[in-house]
Amino acid sequence: MSTSVSPLAPKETPHAPSIDGVRLATAEAGIRYKNRTDVLLALMDEGTTVAGVFTKSKCASAPVEWCKTKMKGGKARALVVNSGNANAFTGKNGKSSTALTAKIAAKAAACKEAEVFLASTGVIGEPLDATKFDGVLERLSTEVSGDRWLDAAKAIMTTDTFPKVATATVKLGKTSVTINGIAKGAGMIAPDMATMLSFVFTDAPLSAGVLQALLKAGVEDTFNAITIDSDTSTSDTLLAFATGAAAQKGAPKISRASDPRLKAFTKAFNAILADLSEQVARDGEGARKLVEVIVEGAVTKKSARKIAMAIANSPLVKTAIAGEDANWGRVVMAVGKAGEPANRDKISIAFNGIRVATKGERDPTYNEEQVSATMKEQVVQIKVSLGLGKGRDRVLTCDLTKEYVAINGDYRS
Amino acid sequence: MSTSVSPLAPKETPHAPSIDGVRLATAEAGIRYKNRTDVLLALMDEGTTVAGVFTKSKCASAPVEWCKTKMKGGKARALVVNSGNANAFTGKNGKSSTALTAKIAAKAAACKEAEVFLASTGVIGEPLDATKFDGVLERLSTEVSGDRWLDAAKAIMTTDTFPKVATATVKLGKTSVTINGIAKGAGMIAPDMATMLSFVFTDAPLSAGVLQALLKAGVEDTFNAITIDSDTSTSDTLLAFATGAAAQKGAPKISRASDPRLKAFTKAFNAILADLSEQVARDGEGARKLVEVIVEGAVTKKSARKIAMAIANSPLVKTAIAGEDANWGRVVMAVGKAGEPANRDKISIAFNGIRVATKGERDPTYNEEQVSATMKEQVVQIKVSLGLGKGRDRVLTCDLTKEYVAINGDYRS
Repeated sequence: MSTSVSPLAPKETPHAPSIDGVRLATAEAGIRYKNRTDVLLALMDEGTTVAGVFTKSKCASAPVEWCKTKMKGGKARALVVNSGNANAFTGKNGKSSTALTAKIAAKAAACKEAEVFLASTGVIGEPLDATKFDGVLERLSTEVSGDRWLDAAKAIMTTDTFPKVATATVKLGKTSVTINGIAKGAGMIAPDMATMLSFVFTDAPLSAGVLQALLKAGVEDTFNAITIDSDTSTSDTLLAFATGAAAQKGAPKISRASDPRLKAFTKAFNAILADLSEQVARDGEGARKLVEVIVEGAVTKKSARKIAMAIANSPLVKTAIAGEDANWGRVVMAVGKAGEPANRDKISIAFNGIRVATKGERDPTYNEEQVSATMKEQVVQIKVSLGLGKGRDRVLTCDLTKEYVAINGDYRS
Repeated sequence: MSTSVSPLAPKETPHAPSIDGVRLATAEAGIRYKNRTDVLLALMDEGTTVAGVFTKSKCASAPVEWCKTKMKGGKARALVVNSGNANAFTGKNGKSSTALTAKIAAKAAACKEAEVFLASTGVIGEPLDATKFDGVLERLSTEVSGDRWLDAAKAIMTTDTFPKVATATVKLGKTSVTINGIAKGAGMIAPDMATMLSFVFTDAPLSAGVLQALLKAGVEDTFNAITIDSDTSTSDTLLAFATGAAAQKGAPKISRASDPRLKAFTKAFNAILADLSEQVARDGEGARKLVEVIVEGAVTKKSARKIAMAIANSPLVKTAIAGEDANWGRVVMAVGKAGEPANRDKISIAFNGIRVATKGERDPTYNEEQVSATMKEQVVQIKVSLGLGKGRDRVLTCDLTKEYVAINGDYRS
């Protein structure tokens, strides 16, 4: 863990209110870290629905495989998350470890094992000793309470420098419902499923199908539109839980994703995903600058995404930003390597709104001093206009600093 | 330019002999650098054939576009290379700059402009003032000599820490022929056409078609199988020139790529490409370790290449190597993100021949001390066995160090 907080961290962590039907507790299980919490237990009331999206890695972790299987039931009563060990690439041991954790959690939560969801983050390839949860989850089940969101966000951190929490209250029908989310990220962040772990909870009465549709659509321009280092984790997991408790206060039960009453909720839900994913980008390992890449004028949105990602993942662009150098030539390079339709002589590029290149060459009004000054900002926007069509996209990333190398050269040893 | 030579540099630069029909000279044209040579003129005798492979960037530089057009003639009499300015993304200015350079060179070499080949390397987006070549090329044409290979390699360097030269003598028929090559690389190195600039010369009498076929086949497992930072330059250029002068000593004229008499020559030619491309990997910006990634047991060679590149381009794998950390979990991650067929529970991984993971989990004989010791070596081999088929491939890369970030954060300012 890093000791100094990212300069890009939000000024304060929002206070997330209780959500009817969700209770949380955290503990020190001693998985890997000393003197910090490393396990989160969330208990959900009966009737809670669940949805999830996961890493597309061909080497997914044991907990990801567990969740994918149990997702089919659509029901959740407990969530167990540990940090320090990803339980990935742990073979048969990994499988029996998830089974044992679920067994212990199901006993503690008095639910079926198939209603327990698991996530692990940390080192890959080390066997996870699930007996460490024995007793701990039982005790936590007696300590759970509704307002432990910050504690929950802290317990799932690895190289994160700040806890990530987001909250919103929105009307569903005429009833106020709440959405809370927590996330952890920092390294090994890239689409698809850019964050390593994120969990979103609501008291809205949504069917599992509706929740899944919301989540799948919502991640596209949020968690799937951020990248720290182009590396995709074996463990990326985003789960959403809907307790349905707001139905008792009059909220309508929603069972169709196309229900027009969902409009405001969908907007708030997407805003939570956008908030959490931006926090992940702001806490990129070693990050000193948040970089917003906008590509417009591409032939399609998909093409714009590919070009934006080529820019956002370019080590040369990222190191230039770290060096506060308006090296737009490297942006051209990244556009060129994306392999998408682009006409060199139509490209324009701007940093923080200051145009540096127009129609294939340096802007005639280029002013090195002015551009250099804007590169000192904490947030740098790179806008590329291709002049070909109407495709537009936006991705978030951060700069590549010596600290990234330091963090990742020492993490495991 | 870096001041300290890469620890991975060859112990000594080979002495390349003269090649009949090729003469070289270098000068300080003051393109960008002070107190160092930055322009190379190579003159070739009449009858010299030429072949080339270039960057696949959609934003190729003006000299790349020039060469592609002139390549059709198949004949070359002069090569002009400058460092310090890439003449890329320079719009109309770039085009008139290449035209003027070719005009000056053609006059100096007393040849047609269409027989002049150009390459530029350095900063992107700055107009290149071709009038700086005026007088300089004329003078160089009177100073050329056959043994200036080391000078030539030095004049084309940018962030390279050592000049890259390779040489071989081989029989073509019963006659000895020579192959010399120079290269420059260091940053913005990735397939396709991994080095930024490389030039190979021979006195063998090969038709342009034969030379092109040799080059195209040869780069596949050499220049296209190395990566420093996954970034593809706008300027990548590899040109080969065959003067044919050895015909006077009895070497057979070769006009079919399938000619059996080419066998030894092809082997030597590929060895030159392999040598030069390995030197480029050894001089990756900030590199402290050469990393050889071997993937075997993939479904096809192509699939093995994709997985090997995912490993070689992973910032997390590369920083782990820099940290001398045998973090094979990150290798698993990279295999997983490649999107190619892989079965987690069949994967084995070895570092420098020491198996660390077998069949999806940590090797039972895993010995942290032994593995840590091997990570201190200057060359680290990562071998991944997928256990699926017979596809095998090998790529070279280097570690990702703080020096890479330092070099690329300050390069332009």
